[in-house]
Amino acid sequence: MTMTNNSPTSPEDIAATFAAMEAKIVKLPAGEPNALFLARAEALMPVLQESCQSPISLVRALPDADAYLRFRMEVVATAAEFERSTWRQGQEFIIDFGGHRTGHLSFQLLAVDGPADSPVKLRLTFGEVPSDVAVPLYPYTGVLSAAWLPDETFTVDDLPQLVRVPRRHAFRFVKVEVLAASSRFGVQFHHVTAHALTAASKQPEPLASASPEWLKRVDEISIATLRDCLQTSFEDGPRRDRRLWLGDLRLQALANYVSFEANDVVRRCLYLLAGLPRADGLVNGCVYERPQASYADTVMLDYAAIYNVTLQEYVHATGDVATGKELWPVALRQIELLCETVGEDDLFVDTGATFCFIDWVLPLERSTAMQGVLIFTLRRTLLLASQLGCESDVAHYAEKIERMVLAAREKLFDVSLGMFVSGPAHQLSCASQAWMVLSGVPVNDVQAATALRQAMSLPQSIKPATPYLYHYIVEAMVTCGMSDEALALVRHYWGGMADAGADTFWEVYEPGKPLSSPLGDIHINSYCHAWSCTPSWFFRAFGLGLKSHT
Amino acid sequence: MTMTNNSPTSPEDIAATFAAMEAKIVKLPAGEPNALFLARAEALMPVLQESCQSPISLVRALPDADAYLRFRMEVVATAAEFERSTWRQGQEFIIDFGGHRTGHLSFQLLAVDGPADSPVKLRLTFGEVPSDVAVPLYPYTGVLSAAWLPDETFTVDDLPQLVRVPRRHAFRFVKVEVLAASSRFGVQFHHVTAHALTAASKQPEPLASASPEWLKRVDEISIATLRDCLQTSFEDGPRRDRRLWLGDLRLQALANYVSFEANDVVRRCLYLLAGLPRADGLVNGCVYERPQASYADTVMLDYAAIYNVTLQEYVHATGDVATGKELWPVALRQIELLCETVGEDDLFVDTGATFCFIDWVLPLERSTAMQGVLIFTLRRTLLLASQLGCESDVAHYAEKIERMVLAAREKLFDVSLGMFVSGPAHQLSCASQAWMVLSGVPVNDVQAATALRQAMSLPQSIKPATPYLYHYIVEAMVTCGMSDEALALVRHYWGGMADAGADTFWEVYEPGKPLSSPLGDIHINSYCHAWSCTPSWFFRAFGLGLKSHT
Repeated sequence: MTMTNNSPTSPEDIAATFAAMEAKIVKLPAGEPNALFLARAEALMPVLQESCQSPISLVRALPDADAYLRFRMEVVATAAEFERSTWRQGQEFIIDFGGHRTGHLSFQLLAVDGPADSPVKLRLTFGEVPSDVAVPLYPYTGVLSAAWLPDETFTVDDLPQLVRVPRRHAFRFVKVEVLAASSRFGVQFHHVTAHALTAASKQPEPLASASPEWLKRVDEISIATLRDCLQTSFEDGPRRDRRLWLGDLRLQALANYVSFEANDVVRRCLYLLAGLPRADGLVNGCVYERPQASYADTVMLDYAAIYNVTLQEYVHATGDVATGKELWPVALRQIELLCETVGEDDLFVDTGATFCFIDWVLPLERSTAMQGVLIFTLRRTLLLASQLGCESDVAHYAEKIERMVLAAREKLFDVSLGMFVSGPAHQLSCASQAWMVLSGVPVNDVQAATALRQAMSLPQSIKPATPYLYHYIVEAMVTCGMSDEALALVRHYWGGMADAGADTFWEVYEPGKPLSSPLGDIHINSYCHAWSCTPSWFFRAFGLGLKSHT
Repeated sequence: MTMTNNSPTSPEDIAATFAAMEAKIVKLPAGEPNALFLARAEALMPVLQESCQSPISLVRALPDADAYLRFRMEVVATAAEFERSTWRQGQEFIIDFGGHRTGHLSFQLLAVDGPADSPVKLRLTFGEVPSDVAVPLYPYTGVLSAAWLPDETFTVDDLPQLVRVPRRHAFRFVKVEVLAASSRFGVQFHHVTAHALTAASKQPEPLASASPEWLKRVDEISIATLRDCLQTSFEDGPRRDRRLWLGDLRLQALANYVSFEANDVVRRCLYLLAGLPRADGLVNGCVYERPQASYADTVMLDYAAIYNVTLQEYVHATGDVATGKELWPVALRQIELLCETVGEDDLFVDTGATFCFIDWVLPLERSTAMQGVLIFTLRRTLLLASQLGCESDVAHYAEKIERMVLAAREKLFDVSLGMFVSGPAHQLSCASQAWMVLSGVPVNDVQAATALRQAMSLPQSIKPATPYLYHYIVEAMVTCGMSDEALALVRHYWGGMADAGADTFWEVYEPGKPLSSPLGDIHINSYCHAWSCTPSWFFRAFGLGLKSHT
């Protein structure tokens, strides 16, 4: 399955796209923090589990046209040989820990062959993938701050010394450069240790051993991705942002229920988001967790809607009705506010007042997808009400859902194409079909499947750019009985990342385009990103790819 | 008073000179550490006093041909204005603390004008003098490791955050560069604080207010220099080396007895040096103090000799006979070993087996100066013996001294020149005259003074390169009744540094040559260096410059 690339490629295009999307995120004032909710979140702070790992080997990065990320790693020394190796000013090496982790690095730095008559200045570069350590980070061309780039320069005064890098990093590889040291001595690195951190306190059951190998590998990578994003909240990515984003949260929570069951972290995240609303009560797109939870002024309408979905699924997965009831007013307020965006014709109206994310593609016309998001959310909110015994609060929304579904069928469906269109130019996109299907707008599964298939194949249809939207396409496919095609898409997309050497799933993956970055520089891409972790949910919750094999 | 410059100037010369001097420091194996002495040293570890200071202002460095160090600092903002200033990526500023200190920097880093949606990457450059922060540290051309250069690059993840730079620095100025941060917010630096550290726990009496202004200023700078070098040992310089060097120790101890009276730190240093001897028992030139006291393989004959002088002066200053007696075997062993370098003609023979420092000038012929050092040391060791009641141990050295004095008078004195010569080429130098005078070789003060005066004025005489040898010239002048010329030299040399804007006295000062560095780059020079701190001793112990004024 191949798709046209719809992401900008020139640095100017990327900067313009980013600026335009940033500009659409209207900064609205913070509401009053909810002290009770924030206290609940604080009380739910998980204890992080630390596990230590030693290097597997030293490697060097060799350019390789056959490698998706353009480099392959060749082992140059065993861990035991490394422990005996001496390094001097100007030398460098790359440590391979054999897999991705989120955490700290420590080592004992020793002087050999003479007294340490000067400090030692080191630069460490933490790599999630080979290109992070194979290609210099600078000059940097990305649109996000270079402060996110994963390198550290520091000086060790007195040797021997146990060095523990205070900042947390996300890495499989660590490039170490001895920038400066007196010529009178060499240094050795003993007991190099990665201190991996996660709030996951159990190991999920592996899939049945008879499962397809590719599928087991994709499941492992999904689980590793979730594990490394699962910290004091569900972070979007441990390299960059390191933030609780609502859109990512739902996908992580789903994967979590079938794996780590760190359900109190989901609960904590629901309280954090509810505790820091916008002035009008809309839930924020993200939360800054440190040094203390604070308002982030990044409200996005579709993310706010997803809050209710996430709460409903949390109550469903855990049976924690008490939390559901305590947060029910928040959910109610969301649908009140969200319905204000619906016009008299029962269609969503994008006033631009609040940004809708949907996917990382600027030219995407989002109104049809948003119509789907709103219907989906209203349905789930009614389901939540029934779980909580609060049906009467929302009974009047049932008719609203009906009207919105009918309006979508009448005004957004192009019968000749068999697809949903969006906006005055009748734009075709995967996003529109996915959300229409998820919200139950198509009259039957055949209509749903046709729309999805066409969207994926027609050249003029805007394709997904991120794993986030890929997820919703697969979820939509599963919803309308397209299990085989859903599985094929997982195989193609997430399996493609696995084939490309991923240890954890990436923020950005456009098959065939290893240099793709919506942020203008692959060095700022996150290669362990929460919104990529849902294959495990498809496998474990729906048996996708497994039912015929187990 | 002007003197010809005898230091190398081209980078190649400097590198060659440094390599040649390094090569002369024969690396000999360590002896068995003396556990008792090291335990004594450990027990004498001083508690450092911390005093906090706020910035005086923000400044900028303006090139100024009239300023000795080529820049003058212009105030651009008050401390209060600074506290309200907001900085963004790419901006930089220079904080002036109004004086030199050794210690740590801390500040509260805040985000303003928006949420901190990225880390903040900062580079700090710590300046002892304006040129440190006015001229980029890189590219670096010095012969010592670039790891000594006083800059720090680090990233602060979560704002607001109290940042305390973990490494100790020596500074008056701090250049702060905001290397990277998201454009969505600015940063402010609140409560910027220099945490000055010293083992000095009292403030010396100021000189009489009627003393000459220049002299009071030179005294203040000397005291500040000593204070900032006075840490858990007497360091040579808090910027670089940060090491207990024996040659520097004697000069610091002398200034200390008339100022801070941190006599237990002198005692600790004597034990540290005695505890880590060379295999044959010779005391090392320096000690590495951290992370634990260890052998430094930098024995220099003149420094080892100075050990006995320092011990004698310690017992004299403190009356601590017990320590003197405990360390007496070390002193005895020094003179035994030192006398092995004296030939049958009672003259020192430089076999090259152990380096003699004397001064930072490679072409200096050191044998006559060493003859003086040895006689001086033997005399002081006999004096120490009388202080300790151990005269009988060393009685036989009295005749040795006589013979060495006579040999020097007969074979090292050029009657026609009225000066002492050194080596087969009869080299003339200030170093030779100073040490001959200090050891009492001239037959009278007139001969001594003539020799010193000629050495300072004759073009072919090798001049001092460092404050270390300047000290011994002044000390020699004081010894032979040249108080006026001694004072004039202090006024010229140390007063010259004061006029050039010194807050503390420098490691390297060649009048008229602000770019002079024996290390190949002024950025590696130390501008607070212990061997420069003795004017206070001359003023306070001898009343130099004060007797006619008080």
